[in-house]
Amino acid sequence: MTLNVGVIGVGMIGQDHIRRLTTVVPGTRIVAVSDANAAQANDVAARVAGAIVHATGEELIADKQVDAVIVASWGATHATYVLAAIKAGKPVFCEKPLATTEADCSAILDAEQAFGRRLVQVGFMRRFDAQYRAMKATIASGAIGAPLIFNSGHRNPSVPGYYTRDMALTDTAVHDIDIARFLLDDEPVAIAVQRPRRNSRGGELSDPLFTLIEMREGALVTIETSVNIAYGYDIRGEIVGETGVVTLAETNAIVVKSNGGFSGRVAEDWRERFGRAFDAEFVEWIAAASRGGAAGPNAWDGYVATVVCDLGVKAMEAGERMAIKLREQPTLYRT
Amino acid sequence: MTLNVGVIGVGMIGQDHIRRLTTVVPGTRIVAVSDANAAQANDVAARVAGAIVHATGEELIADKQVDAVIVASWGATHATYVLAAIKAGKPVFCEKPLATTEADCSAILDAEQAFGRRLVQVGFMRRFDAQYRAMKATIASGAIGAPLIFNSGHRNPSVPGYYTRDMALTDTAVHDIDIARFLLDDEPVAIAVQRPRRNSRGGELSDPLFTLIEMREGALVTIETSVNIAYGYDIRGEIVGETGVVTLAETNAIVVKSNGGFSGRVAEDWRERFGRAFDAEFVEWIAAASRGGAAGPNAWDGYVATVVCDLGVKAMEAGERMAIKLREQPTLYRT
Amino acid sequence: MTLNVGVIGVGMIGQDHIRRLTTVVPGTRIVAVSDANAAQANDVAARVAGAIVHATGEELIADKQVDAVIVASWGATHATYVLAAIKAGKPVFCEKPLATTEADCSAILDAEQAFGRRLVQVGFMRRFDAQYRAMKATIASGAIGAPLIFNSGHRNPSVPGYYTRDMALTDTAVHDIDIARFLLDDEPVAIAVQRPRRNSRGGELSDPLFTLIEMREGALVTIETSVNIAYGYDIRGEIVGETGVVTLAETNAIVVKSNGGFSGRVAEDWRERFGRAFDAEFVEWIAAASRGGAAGPNAWDGYVATVVCDLGVKAMEAGERMAIKLREQPTLYRT
Amino acid sequence: MTLNVGVIGVGMIGQDHIRRLTTVVPGTRIVAVSDANAAQANDVAARVAGAIVHATGEELIADKQVDAVIVASWGATHATYVLAAIKAGKPVFCEKPLATTEADCSAILDAEQAFGRRLVQVGFMRRFDAQYRAMKATIASGAIGAPLIFNSGHRNPSVPGYYTRDMALTDTAVHDIDIARFLLDDEPVAIAVQRPRRNSRGGELSDPLFTLIEMREGALVTIETSVNIAYGYDIRGEIVGETGVVTLAETNAIVVKSNGGFSGRVAEDWRERFGRAFDAEFVEWIAAASRGGAAGPNAWDGYVATVVCDLGVKAMEAGERMAIKLREQPTLYRT
Repeated sequence: MTLNVGVIGVGMIGQDHIRRLTTVVPGTRIVAVSDANAAQANDVAARVAGAIVHATGEELIADKQVDAVIVASWGATHATYVLAAIKAGKPVFCEKPLATTEADCSAILDAEQAFGRRLVQVGFMRRFDAQYRAMKATIASGAIGAPLIFNSGHRNPSVPGYYTRDMALTDTAVHDIDIARFLLDDEPVAIAVQRPRRNSRGGELSDPLFTLIEMREGALVTIETSVNIAYGYDIRGEIVGETGVVTLAETNAIVVKSNGGFSGRVAEDWRERFGRAFDAEFVEWIAAASRGGAAGPNAWDGYVATVVCDLGVKAMEAGERMAIKLREQPTLYRT
Repeated sequence: MTLNVGVIGVGMIGQDHIRRLTTVVPGTRIVAVSDANAAQANDVAARVAGAIVHATGEELIADKQVDAVIVASWGATHATYVLAAIKAGKPVFCEKPLATTEADCSAILDAEQAFGRRLVQVGFMRRFDAQYRAMKATIASGAIGAPLIFNSGHRNPSVPGYYTRDMALTDTAVHDIDIARFLLDDEPVAIAVQRPRRNSRGGELSDPLFTLIEMREGALVTIETSVNIAYGYDIRGEIVGETGVVTLAETNAIVVKSNGGFSGRVAEDWRERFGRAFDAEFVEWIAAASRGGAAGPNAWDGYVATVVCDLGVKAMEAGERMAIKLREQPTLYRT
Repeated sequence: MTLNVGVIGVGMIGQDHIRRLTTVVPGTRIVAVSDANAAQANDVAARVAGAIVHATGEELIADKQVDAVIVASWGATHATYVLAAIKAGKPVFCEKPLATTEADCSAILDAEQAFGRRLVQVGFMRRFDAQYRAMKATIASGAIGAPLIFNSGHRNPSVPGYYTRDMALTDTAVHDIDIARFLLDDEPVAIAVQRPRRNSRGGELSDPLFTLIEMREGALVTIETSVNIAYGYDIRGEIVGETGVVTLAETNAIVVKSNGGFSGRVAEDWRERFGRAFDAEFVEWIAAASRGGAAGPNAWDGYVATVVCDLGVKAMEAGERMAIKLREQPTLYRT
Repeated sequence: MTLNVGVIGVGMIGQDHIRRLTTVVPGTRIVAVSDANAAQANDVAARVAGAIVHATGEELIADKQVDAVIVASWGATHATYVLAAIKAGKPVFCEKPLATTEADCSAILDAEQAFGRRLVQVGFMRRFDAQYRAMKATIASGAIGAPLIFNSGHRNPSVPGYYTRDMALTDTAVHDIDIARFLLDDEPVAIAVQRPRRNSRGGELSDPLFTLIEMREGALVTIETSVNIAYGYDIRGEIVGETGVVTLAETNAIVVKSNGGFSGRVAEDWRERFGRAFDAEFVEWIAAASRGGAAGPNAWDGYVATVVCDLGVKAMEAGERMAIKLREQPTLYRT
């Protein structure tokens, strides 16, 4: 019952997925890879027993040996591959973003709706994180009453040189936006972006950002993105309800007392903080894809993320609150 | 070296101040009281050895036995008494608000400036709280770099029946606004107020509120006011800096493990949370007033609080960001 | 209703008590002091308005101006002064130890029993600490079932040069022994002292020690004394019950995140950790002494502490468990 | 490069290992099982694709298809199978205890020493736990100086009916004893067991126990075993060093504030607390066994655990401190 997987795009993220599937999570065999950079595809395939190289993602998807597809190529190419996978009726795990334009996301929704059942899973790994799941269970338990405000903090010690101003929304806050929808089980209706005093460590970036999103049922979501905060990779979250609050706990293994105080570690990077969420993401994907389907975040989640982030960039530039317009949700995604 | 104090207004707060000065904090003698309700004044005086009753606050201020004055009467009367105390050259501790209108606050600034030295201390007790002082010291130490965002949370389990919608700003958030200025050592330049989904426990109130204040040097202040949150009186605060953050710690005495988990207490009310800050506030006031002066929050702080809260109410009603205009700061208050 | 207090012994501790009574806790007037060092007595009296100097403690106790006595002289002199105060029928606050020998403690018990009501309060300030009181209340609430084990940790960053090996028991663990009796409401029946590997920072001291005390109802008390642990003054305590545990919380004001981790302070010394317990100790003593009595730890507590610590020193030297024999408890101390 | 594994003993623990190897940790194929209960062996084999049943453990070990062996049968049978595996030159993972008698443990040491390299790994999963590893790294970093005391707490909410008094040592404290040796990198020289007041929930058991172990270099190890403490499965640990301490952190995912306090979860059972340690244990075993060897806790560790626990039972019964005598350590285990 091994799932034969083809991987499109074997850059840093694609290789990390292959590493995870070959050494951490059981149940798959990597049978094919492809990459715009043919040399890189050959290099990676040479290190994975049994994997062949395809010239294009389309060829890989068409390969009868391939049961399911992972799309980890450059964002602008995602839509083409996801649509091809749907056409081929093959389960496809697509790294975020689902697509870089609202139109492409929408085309995917239509294609999957026409196909008639879910094939697409989007790489929002936070939905598989034990801490966020415990938060969501707390809301469901009624322990804090109806949720009224969700404050999310997303802090990176630093970002690479190619990181642009818009990426604070499209690459970083996108995770907070998705998890807010997951936790609150609600859709955004408006967005505004505040630009506080700039961190001198951030060069030309507008860092930090403080984004406000209004949800349909009235809850307010606030997102702090600090991408040069030096001290660590720290994901904060607190939901304020009618009668209580729930907060993500610290994740330190030990407490040390020395030199006049106590201390504990903060995660160093997303690998450390979300390593197990990535594991769980693929465990659930493999189980679902082996049955011809998908788990967790779906194409609609990918669509909303792209729409909200794009509008967020406009709202940031304009310095204005903007209303979010979502297309009608296809029946496939209604729960 | 005992300071002879007269107390104007002996309702709940005035009586609590008298209790504190007679049983907790040494260094004063309550020599006179007055109240719009003469019967109440007589009752209170009867329980304080050596205290006489004056028919009016003005008479009390004029009393030669009175070295220093505490104003704890109805807010709308504060300005009159503070101005009278300044005229008499007597140190005056004025409960918040300093005055209920910008004009009255401004008149007090002018009077004190004309007098030539500080006589007025405003009752923003948080400035004497050990936790906030440690926060401020952390900024000063450089441990988190320049402060960029201050998130303040102000949660009450419930509010009395007379609590009106505007009081979430003028009575509750006013403390967060003042402490933000204290912590950041900066002045506000704009305010906007978000009204998230309403807590069903809050009746007609707009509860919670989420207020955003932009400071002159660019830091962003956010204030959550939740005044019916049931679980406790919980004051949260976190400052996000360039390289780190500082957060108010929990204040529980013990941790109990039972029934599948661990737990600790949250304070029940402001008396429990800020009891020691009130003590310190009066310890410092008594020391300063005994030398003819005042300590901590001054009339300028009272003026800014009134201006910002009044504009906050307008911003909330309009649903718009509003620019804050402060008069020129008299030289007396420049540090 | 001011209590006129005479202070016998105005070294470091006596002066600190005077400071507390003149500047922190209201309700007393220091009317007399005495000290074996007459010059020191004069110096201190010169700084306290209205205080006179007596040549001896006995004279001070006999002074009609003196309503109540504080004994803060050298430990070996305590018994004489406490007995004199009882003879004079005056409330007496005696710093630990109540007396340095079992015989002297016993004589005090007999004298107070003969007098017929409590006059003596011993300076075990931990009983007034809010954290220990919350612990005791937790036991009383039944939240953890019957207490079975109490682990107490007493850590000092360093100790002065005159600190001897026995003082780890008689001066340091004595507080843990007393608070164990308070928390468990039980008496010790046996003691053994383990001497783990020595801290290289501790010179000739046997540091740390690990003391085990068996209580009458079977609960086990363990006491770690580490007196050169460098990192801070840290008092730990955990009670293991039948269905849960209760632990002293950390007491840090803020949490700072920087440099890869979070951190908070540990107290620097006993003044910081127990400052408020000392305040409360005197607030309660003043109230009780003003009514001619005493509060909190009594002469029986002082007697048991001396007996157990003395036996502990023997048990440490012998490397053996030793049974504790207490005299019959006078009726005055039975609750 | 799949490791073909045979499992001897497919009761609760053996089945859990099979589940882990077939669904969580990649790299193995279960090719054979055996069990004293043939029906159970058949049932389990029927659910594992490709697994055959052997009539005896010896047959299973001799099976050429079997690369490596897991011994999860009844403790008294362990030695026989481990010795057979060594004789066959096959890597063997043996659940604790390595053997139930000192003589059998010693025979295994001799056999493995004669074989010339490690084949045996003992199931002390705590050594793979991230929290304990962080503790050990802290000692190695020098952050707390030399370790002087290690306090270990081992709390179970309840134990099954077959749990006997001795098992508090041989089945429960055995983990604390092993991890103490791991953390301190030292061997025990004496043991004493205190029996505090009994938990009324524990029936005839002597619960809790408080065990003291002296290590060769002088550090003191204390072990609280509470096996009916109701509130949760809670593993506590603190190492007191010369200049600081290191403590296992709480492992809660979230903090909830409601009803006057904050709270977080404690683990429910060992599966929740040590689930990831079991994963890591097998990840490292599979990697090592695939190279013909073993990882982590070795036969010497198993030998010492059996010797110390057996003596601990005697020390408990006698109420006396007993000196521990270990045989000379074979060169194979010297590091």
